[in-house]
Amino acid sequence: MARSYHWQNRIRFVDTDASQRIHYTAMFRHFEAAEQEFLRSMGCPYSSPEFRDYSFPRVHVECDFTAEIRYDDIIDIELTVDRVGSSSFTISFHVAVDSRPVSKGKITVVCIDKQTQRPARIPDRLVEVLRAHLA
Amino acid sequence: MARSYHWQNRIRFVDTDASQRIHYTAMFRHFEAAEQEFLRSMGCPYSSPEFRDYSFPRVHVECDFTAEIRYDDIIDIELTVDRVGSSSFTISFHVAVDSRPVSKGKITVVCIDKQTQRPARIPDRLVEVLRAHLA
Amino acid sequence: MARSYHWQNRIRFVDTDASQRIHYTAMFRHFEAAEQEFLRSMGCPYSSPEFRDYSFPRVHVECDFTAEIRYDDIIDIELTVDRVGSSSFTISFHVAVDSRPVSKGKITVVCIDKQTQRPARIPDRLVEVLRAHLA
Amino acid sequence: MARSYHWQNRIRFVDTDASQRIHYTAMFRHFEAAEQEFLRSMGCPYSSPEFRDYSFPRVHVECDFTAEIRYDDIIDIELTVDRVGSSSFTISFHVAVDSRPVSKGKITVVCIDKQTQRPARIPDRLVEVLRAHLA
Repeated sequence: MARSYHWQNRIRFVDTDASQRIHYTAMFRHFEAAEQEFLRSMGCPYSSPEFRDYSFPRVHVECDFTAEIRYDDIIDIELTVDRVGSSSFTISFHVAVDSRPVSKGKITVVCIDKQTQRPARIPDRLVEVLRAHLA
Repeated sequence: MARSYHWQNRIRFVDTDASQRIHYTAMFRHFEAAEQEFLRSMGCPYSSPEFRDYSFPRVHVECDFTAEIRYDDIIDIELTVDRVGSSSFTISFHVAVDSRPVSKGKITVVCIDKQTQRPARIPDRLVEVLRAHLA
Repeated sequence: MARSYHWQNRIRFVDTDASQRIHYTAMFRHFEAAEQEFLRSMGCPYSSPEFRDYSFPRVHVECDFTAEIRYDDIIDIELTVDRVGSSSFTISFHVAVDSRPVSKGKITVVCIDKQTQRPARIPDRLVEVLRAHLA
Repeated sequence: MARSYHWQNRIRFVDTDASQRIHYTAMFRHFEAAEQEFLRSMGCPYSSPEFRDYSFPRVHVECDFTAEIRYDDIIDIELTVDRVGSSSFTISFHVAVDSRPVSKGKITVVCIDKQTQRPARIPDRLVEVLRAHLA
């Protein structure tokens, strides 16, 4: 059975805009934090030496907003892995406030060899971690 | 024939991250500027009095990155309108650096009545402007 | 004796720029989170109903950077209160990575009456909390 | 007589927060753009090959806000140079909306040798440009 990872954070003033709601770019900052803490929790943060030769740019990002998100709301982000390819993977985020779904998002990350600047095979340990969280 | 709107800007340091590339959230800031200048160029900026009773939250945003974008690059954003519904519309952005495509994105905006906080019919003048740019 | 409040966070990719260091604007986001969690920890977050009639814009912000701060560093922010006036107050932040000082900052916040948009007396409970943390 | 450089931009939605005003971090993004366009206008942008071996981190940044700045305001930023040292310089920004002063700021930039990561003499051409704009 697929495992999911949960990460929580508060919406800050800097996350909002004059509409009083979250500015949509802010959600991606929270997705990024969730993704990084997920990998850290599995013992393989992007900053670990074994990933030194790779970078992990995003080739696709998206987000849907289905309900208002406001200043000081606690968002609970559930992270699952949608797909693990040979050189790219897709992560999904489901966001809830007080258990109500408010947003969902998705990012596709490519593993790039820093030397060649070309797609590279995702390091084994990362593949393993991602597969364990396949939805 | 559909018309498109072009808007240019520079990539700033604050738009980049430690990978040396643009941080993906930064592209959405540029999309927002392009969208606002597009509407201004058509004589109906979001700040005009006729839109006073509405807000325009985004319910879907997405972006693909197909080539590197770096500090000080000039990005040319071509804006077209994909769809105009009764209370929502979708705008597309095609981004080029030196005429090479590097990114594309899409946002779906809903027209909300500030009083009721419910979807409302898009004001006529905005519909007209959007329809004139349907791809 | 003055009390101080500590708050920790990670430096994210979105906090960095192409120099590989933190982009200076990012530190202010972390200061804001520290300030909000400080007030929450004292039982008076800005979102509490008693502050409904006020807003708290910043009239002065500053930050010094004395050492490199990089991706995935854990920053420890120590917050103290420098000054509590009748309608404004000043908060200081001292930032350390692995116990090494790396940055310090300061913000001056004014209490504004939302109706009149004029400076107002800081609510009593907030004054009390701030005074308890005067450096 | 000292020369000053002017640069204009619009306040975007992403620049605002739930208070309806500019979020203070946004002003620093505009300062950065002004600084970069100032240097470009003088023929020496940070991206020029002659600066390849240097980086220019900020060791001090500050900003005062003296009047409200809102969505869609056009800000006019006047840039002057306060001080040119051997390895650092200070730039000031005076911001006006409709000719009313609304904000002012200051940044101190250090020239760093990328190899040694130590302060280095500011390249001659940059010194010259900065001196010509000393307030």
